[in-house]
Amino acid sequence: MRRMVLVLVAVGALAGVVADMAPASAQADGEAAPIFGVKMPPGYRDWRLISVAHEEGNLNDLRAILGNDVAIKAYREGQLPYPEGTIIARLAWDYVPSEENNKVFGRRQSFVAGPPKNGVQFMVKDSRKYVATGGWGFAQFNDGKPADEAVHRTCFSCHEPAKARDFVFTRYAP
Amino acid sequence: MRRMVLVLVAVGALAGVVADMAPASAQADGEAAPIFGVKMPPGYRDWRLISVAHEEGNLNDLRAILGNDVAIKAYREGQLPYPEGTIIARLAWDYVPSEENNKVFGRRQSFVAGPPKNGVQFMVKDSRKYVATGGWGFAQFNDGKPADEAVHRTCFSCHEPAKARDFVFTRYAP
Repeated sequence: MRRMVLVLVAVGALAGVVADMAPASAQADGEAAPIFGVKMPPGYRDWRLISVAHEEGNLNDLRAILGNDVAIKAYREGQLPYPEGTIIARLAWDYVPSEENNKVFGRRQSFVAGPPKNGVQFMVKDSRKYVATGGWGFAQFNDGKPADEAVHRTCFSCHEPAKARDFVFTRYAP
Repeated sequence: MRRMVLVLVAVGALAGVVADMAPASAQADGEAAPIFGVKMPPGYRDWRLISVAHEEGNLNDLRAILGNDVAIKAYREGQLPYPEGTIIARLAWDYVPSEENNKVFGRRQSFVAGPPKNGVQFMVKDSRKYVATGGWGFAQFNDGKPADEAVHRTCFSCHEPAKARDFVFTRYAP
């Protein structure tokens, strides 16, 4: 009996160590994205708003950029580079004209968010883990499933022009 | 001295009663909006995201609709009418083409949030206080100051076409 208790204590301690070592990006359930191994962070839809945007062309979406608490604090304090544990989420929805709103305004001018579109993307700051990509891990999930490796190969090269702002394009909308 | 203590106790009790009676909309500091008496709710910029939109024409903005905890819960559960204490906030920013993003995409397609624009608007649910306007109090603040009475006279009539959804146009973006 005494041995069993000792084993349980040891397992408990080990579990604690493992939990401490797990990066923020790996605490979620679900499949990890290729290359960077980022999983969907739990509760990201509850995160606070950084800004909004509209992409025309093939993307044709309305998007919201949300941040976890570390991200929001860094944005508001103008902290650069972003601290370890920063996660920035990019949500997007179909760009849909609102006939209902247009009637009220008396002209065709209103566009609202339709169904989710173009996946959900994340940037996760972990300077040691992602040395080769500016300290950021990238991930895109389509309907909750990681996009393929080819998609993930494009992330960092697209973000490189924003190097002066730690590879983050989006500015905070007050 | 004893009379002074009694007076202080009485004032304290009265203050407590007044505080209890104050609706959610009146707990903030700052000037109240005309007609409805709504003040800017503290911390609204930290509220969770309901959806995003783009208005062309004279408004020419990108907007985010945020909700307090009561609002978010009601939205996610599809609760209609919205419960007492619901507050919905509409923030908006100038609709600005992003040359920086366009360079990355290789075409002119990216629009981001510029400086705040068209004020911040609120809908506050208080069925008893706002009987004449569907149970909602409305407010618009420009640079933190309430817009004038004429502006506030237009709020409810614009929202009336959305009566079937308790006068709220914006749908939840998942």
